[in-house]
Amino acid sequence: MTFCERLFEKVQPVWEKSHNHPFVTGMGDGTLEKDRFQHYIVQDYLYLLDYAKLYAIGVVKATNPKVMAKFAKQIDGILNGEMTIHKQYAKRLGISVEDMELAKPSAMNLAYTNYMMSVSQNGTLAELIAALLPCMWSYWEIGKRLNAISGARDHEFFGEWIRGYSSEEYGDLCIWLIDLFNEITIGKTEEELNRLEEIFLYSSRFEYLFWDMAYRKEMWGFEEQEHTTIS
Amino acid sequence: MTFCERLFEKVQPVWEKSHNHPFVTGMGDGTLEKDRFQHYIVQDYLYLLDYAKLYAIGVVKATNPKVMAKFAKQIDGILNGEMTIHKQYAKRLGISVEDMELAKPSAMNLAYTNYMMSVSQNGTLAELIAALLPCMWSYWEIGKRLNAISGARDHEFFGEWIRGYSSEEYGDLCIWLIDLFNEITIGKTEEELNRLEEIFLYSSRFEYLFWDMAYRKEMWGFEEQEHTTIS
Amino acid sequence: MTFCERLFEKVQPVWEKSHNHPFVTGMGDGTLEKDRFQHYIVQDYLYLLDYAKLYAIGVVKATNPKVMAKFAKQIDGILNGEMTIHKQYAKRLGISVEDMELAKPSAMNLAYTNYMMSVSQNGTLAELIAALLPCMWSYWEIGKRLNAISGARDHEFFGEWIRGYSSEEYGDLCIWLIDLFNEITIGKTEEELNRLEEIFLYSSRFEYLFWDMAYRKEMWGFEEQEHTTIS
Amino acid sequence: MTFCERLFEKVQPVWEKSHNHPFVTGMGDGTLEKDRFQHYIVQDYLYLLDYAKLYAIGVVKATNPKVMAKFAKQIDGILNGEMTIHKQYAKRLGISVEDMELAKPSAMNLAYTNYMMSVSQNGTLAELIAALLPCMWSYWEIGKRLNAISGARDHEFFGEWIRGYSSEEYGDLCIWLIDLFNEITIGKTEEELNRLEEIFLYSSRFEYLFWDMAYRKEMWGFEEQEHTTIS
Repeated sequence: MTFCERLFEKVQPVWEKSHNHPFVTGMGDGTLEKDRFQHYIVQDYLYLLDYAKLYAIGVVKATNPKVMAKFAKQIDGILNGEMTIHKQYAKRLGISVEDMELAKPSAMNLAYTNYMMSVSQNGTLAELIAALLPCMWSYWEIGKRLNAISGARDHEFFGEWIRGYSSEEYGDLCIWLIDLFNEITIGKTEEELNRLEEIFLYSSRFEYLFWDMAYRKEMWGFEEQEHTTIS
Repeated sequence: MTFCERLFEKVQPVWEKSHNHPFVTGMGDGTLEKDRFQHYIVQDYLYLLDYAKLYAIGVVKATNPKVMAKFAKQIDGILNGEMTIHKQYAKRLGISVEDMELAKPSAMNLAYTNYMMSVSQNGTLAELIAALLPCMWSYWEIGKRLNAISGARDHEFFGEWIRGYSSEEYGDLCIWLIDLFNEITIGKTEEELNRLEEIFLYSSRFEYLFWDMAYRKEMWGFEEQEHTTIS
Repeated sequence: MTFCERLFEKVQPVWEKSHNHPFVTGMGDGTLEKDRFQHYIVQDYLYLLDYAKLYAIGVVKATNPKVMAKFAKQIDGILNGEMTIHKQYAKRLGISVEDMELAKPSAMNLAYTNYMMSVSQNGTLAELIAALLPCMWSYWEIGKRLNAISGARDHEFFGEWIRGYSSEEYGDLCIWLIDLFNEITIGKTEEELNRLEEIFLYSSRFEYLFWDMAYRKEMWGFEEQEHTTIS
Repeated sequence: MTFCERLFEKVQPVWEKSHNHPFVTGMGDGTLEKDRFQHYIVQDYLYLLDYAKLYAIGVVKATNPKVMAKFAKQIDGILNGEMTIHKQYAKRLGISVEDMELAKPSAMNLAYTNYMMSVSQNGTLAELIAALLPCMWSYWEIGKRLNAISGARDHEFFGEWIRGYSSEEYGDLCIWLIDLFNEITIGKTEEELNRLEEIFLYSSRFEYLFWDMAYRKEMWGFEEQEHTTIS
């Protein structure tokens, strides 16, 4: 059993919760309300900026020039490719570029991204991958499942999301990172593997809570007057 | 108006929410259930380990040897003083040392500490202080308010907490950090001050959510089977 | 006077020393011995890997998505473009890919790159730029001066170097970073500007010492038996 | 053979060069000129500030609370103990507190400290220890050797240095870190051990070059007019 097979087995209970969350099932059967998806798209835009930073930390932590080069491609892909697509997507959903740029992260968004950032800055390349892989990989799993639903890939708003994350190109990217993770964890002690498993699990839980935050259109989850002044 | 006076005014709505949270008022009138306080003490133990790390990052970021020396005193105070007291406190509450050492952080604990860690590692000394000051300062405010309640400081479990955080020694520490923050923010641009204000506000909100997590004895807020295996 | 004009004036004594170093003048008049240039190319290959890491730290430190995107382009450009050219260059000079990949950094190479890395990790985006700009900018200055020497740009080995670093494309890159640096230093206090000036000066001095290391084909500058075992 | 025994064997050629350097032998037989020692004391004062920062990074990287607590003691010991002694020492040597505080690091000082800083920030706790242990351990070795020379420990200027670094208390500190390093490297792959060995060797070489810099009272090793303005 590869280390990623072990991880996959371990996180099934959490990933299944994500698969069954009304936000995710709602993208599949087209019942997800537009305002929930809008909230998601805005928060995901902010999330992606930090996700690019994680790959950048990967360039710093990696010692193999080929791994560095591949991570560099990812950063460039997010910041000079995916972000542009995201803004066009947002536009079609009725979200202006200004809205995107002025948006503030929700508590759960901050929680998730800063968890990954902090783990990555303090940790090894393996710990960084353990932190960022659940997002990438679970999106592929969700993409593939939703794509199997008849008509889902043609939905006006959710179709693009489903086509993207179930695509062969995206899958190849996931496989590359999974293979790399398997490769660099060979020879690690059980103590080190347990630490990586814990990070992978924590990120998976935050991933679930991110879906939930999006569904509930939540920012901080409590009312306060000062809310309007900054965020 | 000093910068900290500006901050104090700004965060009033959130800090007032903390003052009025049943966990906090329950420490004051002695109605807080013991199991909620136990959950708090265990999570706070884990929190303190990361809080010490923040001061350590402060030693790295500071350039003034006197500031470095004072931060060093703080790290030593937490790890070689406060932690020991914490363990004795826990013991009196019926929490064993093993329970403390095997305990896992809740989602909100991870969210708060990793937010502070990530901001501090990426940021300046001023940003680090903006992140960690709300905890220190708001504890002083709460300590002083609870101490004014007749009999509160003599409570079997909560009295020690109240006496500690309302003490002159603790107050002096807060004043030192407030003064330092005012001093190093002189001459900063309004853009920089707004960024510091945002960090201060975010940490204050996480502080409130930490009280709420403790009160609800929450770990991740959702049921999952795998919960028992790691945490 | 812009901040970069101030810096330019300030570092003239050091930059002039680089302009007049026999390594640099030897590239211009074609008298530089091939083995010195080989040593330079190998060390510069290792240097570039770390230089890419600095831009990656820039992606982490930057908050403006456009700056992040531009830095991402740079990392990708170095790791997926410049490195390949470098290896082809090396091949023409009789250095095998294996030689490049097994090469170890000299003391001065380690000194310079780790100075920039450490400053960048601890510091602000402005401090990061102060650390990495002297290399980029002074190469442009040297490139332009050497390009003005009749025949220099057509030299078998040095011509490509001279054409690259005197090109309009390379100049545009320098101007972009100079403009960005001027822009983000507006409103900084004199104390902050002095710190940036100091970093800029230190990096410029290390840049000079790098030329000198290359010329003397130096590794650690002292004989030791163990030298052969690792490096 | 423990890992530290392996390292000790490996670095013998470099450490022997330090033992035989005229700066070190001159402390032992009392022939070292006072101005060379003054240069050393000033540079070492700056070095120690960064050395404290390394232990602070250690508090951040460590996960074991006992290791964190011990590192905290070290930071406090340097910044609130050793620095004060250093200033008194300097005073007796005719160096004023102002001289110390306005002093600028030499190129080799910057090279060495920033190498350790950068390795520690990017690396694991083991890599951090590999970077900082050569200084601590080789000082003990030198201290013990010099202390065996009749009369050396009573020398007006060098005696205090020799007594300090040959003391049982200092030895215990070294043994603690050596033991910790042996412990945390158990189970590491040969690839990881080679990387640690490389760091240990590089730091040892920088250590030798630091002695040499002190002996030659060197700052940057080349004349420049601008030298007087900042450093």
